[in-house]
Amino acid sequence: MLYIVSAPSGSGKTTLLKRVMDYFPDIKFSISYTTRPPRPGERDGKDYYFISPQRFQQMVKEKAFAEWAEVLGNRYGTPLDSIREIRSQGIDLMLDIDSQGARQIKERFNGGVFIFILPPSLEALKQRLKARGGDEQEVIEFRVSKARDEMKQAVWYNYAVINDNFEEAVEQLKSIIIAERCRWERVLKRRSLNLGGDLWQGSR
Amino acid sequence: MLYIVSAPSGSGKTTLLKRVMDYFPDIKFSISYTTRPPRPGERDGKDYYFISPQRFQQMVKEKAFAEWAEVLGNRYGTPLDSIREIRSQGIDLMLDIDSQGARQIKERFNGGVFIFILPPSLEALKQRLKARGGDEQEVIEFRVSKARDEMKQAVWYNYAVINDNFEEAVEQLKSIIIAERCRWERVLKRRSLNLGGDLWQGSR
Repeated sequence: MLYIVSAPSGSGKTTLLKRVMDYFPDIKFSISYTTRPPRPGERDGKDYYFISPQRFQQMVKEKAFAEWAEVLGNRYGTPLDSIREIRSQGIDLMLDIDSQGARQIKERFNGGVFIFILPPSLEALKQRLKARGGDEQEVIEFRVSKARDEMKQAVWYNYAVINDNFEEAVEQLKSIIIAERCRWERVLKRRSLNLGGDLWQGSR
Repeated sequence: MLYIVSAPSGSGKTTLLKRVMDYFPDIKFSISYTTRPPRPGERDGKDYYFISPQRFQQMVKEKAFAEWAEVLGNRYGTPLDSIREIRSQGIDLMLDIDSQGARQIKERFNGGVFIFILPPSLEALKQRLKARGGDEQEVIEFRVSKARDEMKQAVWYNYAVINDNFEEAVEQLKSIIIAERCRWERVLKRRSLNLGGDLWQGSR
């Protein structure tokens, strides 16, 4: 299973994902490569692999990315290896990527679950970006305008979680993962041998 | 939204549903009509509407049921009125019906969420039926054999919840409902006016 989570910058996605990932120790988190410099508190190999634009370009040439995208002059990419490795081992993988990248994943791989995190409103988003600091006023304006466009186009995602009340958003994201694991075909795969031996053999 | 929950007799569905319905006071529970006599503790108008076979037959003739089915010589039916009324008011409705009835609902109405509750195994089901009492040995054998058939055919349902650990099953059923409410089209309907005014107008 592939879970793909996207959100406009400032939606609180990172904090939300951290909480939810604690709840599912069996889901592996895919660490992206980026050419953007680390923000305060971010660590190489944990939040991102921070690499040079030259190295990134090399990896693009080597087709090492499952998807990559450029945002505000910085590049972000998901290593293809981790998806292949995870899928061959039957482990669930969580991707935290932007909507350009998500679209590439959707076109390239089957069966992903696409979740979009929404801020309660564009005004709230602007306030959060200001409060976070580190961005110039014009970058904030750009991010809000990009968020507006992204939200309009994100209707092809499977789910939307509005990060208004944080605990509710955590509950919703958790619920989406639990529910996806209850889909018939997945329950069948996991439990086929436990339910009365030949019970499931006939129908699948 | 229509939620349809089915389960072999003895899967613990009733207890499970009661717990989950407490969590969602906004979901209305559809009370079925039946010709079967009440079990100890069951109340008319709360668990079922207990009616005579003649009255049931009359309602069938009047096309008063959204679905109806016969199990072990007893008939069970969902009143069409409650579905119509609920849908026109935009309220969610929970149906607790058998798989024959569920199939009729699927063919007749759009957009239902179909959930099948499974016992951990057929052996466990047999033990629960014995412990519940009230059924002859041959009725138990019949129920187990019917459960086997139903489980084989229930692959067209959207979700399967295995009632092995009760608390986990409650969590799964709750999660399915929460997740379904996070589907894009439903979030859009609920929130379209709250998210930045015209934000969603363009794309839908």
